[in-house]
Amino acid sequence: MIKVYGVHGSPYVRKVFIALDIKDVPYEIVRQMPFSEDAKYLKINPLGKIPSLVDEDLTLCDSKVICQYLDDAYPKPRLYPMRADDWARALWYEDLAGGRVSELAASIFFQRFMRPLAFKQEPDEELIARIIEKDLPPMLDYLESQIPTGRFIFGDFMMADLSIASPFINAAYAGYEVDESRWPNLAGLVARVRAQPQVAAVLEKEQRALGLD
Amino acid sequence: MIKVYGVHGSPYVRKVFIALDIKDVPYEIVRQMPFSEDAKYLKINPLGKIPSLVDEDLTLCDSKVICQYLDDAYPKPRLYPMRADDWARALWYEDLAGGRVSELAASIFFQRFMRPLAFKQEPDEELIARIIEKDLPPMLDYLESQIPTGRFIFGDFMMADLSIASPFINAAYAGYEVDESRWPNLAGLVARVRAQPQVAAVLEKEQRALGLD
Repeated sequence: MIKVYGVHGSPYVRKVFIALDIKDVPYEIVRQMPFSEDAKYLKINPLGKIPSLVDEDLTLCDSKVICQYLDDAYPKPRLYPMRADDWARALWYEDLAGGRVSELAASIFFQRFMRPLAFKQEPDEELIARIIEKDLPPMLDYLESQIPTGRFIFGDFMMADLSIASPFINAAYAGYEVDESRWPNLAGLVARVRAQPQVAAVLEKEQRALGLD
Repeated sequence: MIKVYGVHGSPYVRKVFIALDIKDVPYEIVRQMPFSEDAKYLKINPLGKIPSLVDEDLTLCDSKVICQYLDDAYPKPRLYPMRADDWARALWYEDLAGGRVSELAASIFFQRFMRPLAFKQEPDEELIARIIEKDLPPMLDYLESQIPTGRFIFGDFMMADLSIASPFINAAYAGYEVDESRWPNLAGLVARVRAQPQVAAVLEKEQRALGLD
């Protein structure tokens, strides 16, 4: 059976759980915190990040790579568009969302949620203000320009939608919501993603894991 | 005609030029430095990074995404393997090489090469020593474990080989070479990649652009 290394609550691990659930592929979760110095895990993923996937002889890291692999190995239903140009745009949105956008959203989540909880430290509100007022808006403006009004990006719900929404789900745990008067298409997309049944089911599990239920 | 935004010398732009040359697809280079604050370029790439590709109505950013698109749109010769597991491993190697490995190698290049040249500043040798002695070796150990002896990773020369070699080509401009007694498979791969005719041709152009000829 496929093994997924990770924990509930990571914006990256979430994508893999949801992709597997949508494709109805059974998997086992191997509990693994990110950035552990565990030498055994570093052999699986030299970056120590999560998720990693082990499927018999194949070991893969990085949620983008894992989700692309799953779409190829278990093609129904498709989570990436078939047309070459749409497919490439989907990859780019996922790269941007999992890169710069997640870094910023994860900083809000880390500062306001994980730091008080795990380290008993106050959040750095100056850093948070800079992210919310200065660093995030150009990214949100760009995403807003790419997202259609009232529907998923490529028609059906796909990985592009989930990967864009995922960091904002974490930011919301820390009290940050995308301003729907300023970025209505993005705010609408995040809401539509949350309402997907397989997404809602995973979010319920992770809220229990994070002690938010 | 396809437009590639970027400059010679970037480890990421290099991948795209070489992919296009191998596939014999004509393109126009639009000279663009990374991290410019040019509002027009930020509309193409909100991160301000290079390369970006514009092909009629399609705008794509990120060298991984662009190279995947090119392999799909111009399939001959293939630069990614056809088997699902090999293909996914190739994506993971490219992600690692363009991520953490490039960050480290680019720091050596920036400190020793760009900083004196462009900013008339001394390199931070303490930072360089930490990268070379502490941060890079675990990445090199991992890559060494994944690379076969005496040949390319998937038989033919492909993007996985080029993306792993590319950051080390930049580090070599700054005097850092992979120690072939410690990491012989990796050092051998970098040498084999350099010897590919389309790679050698692009390296010749970029050495002229960097004033190294």
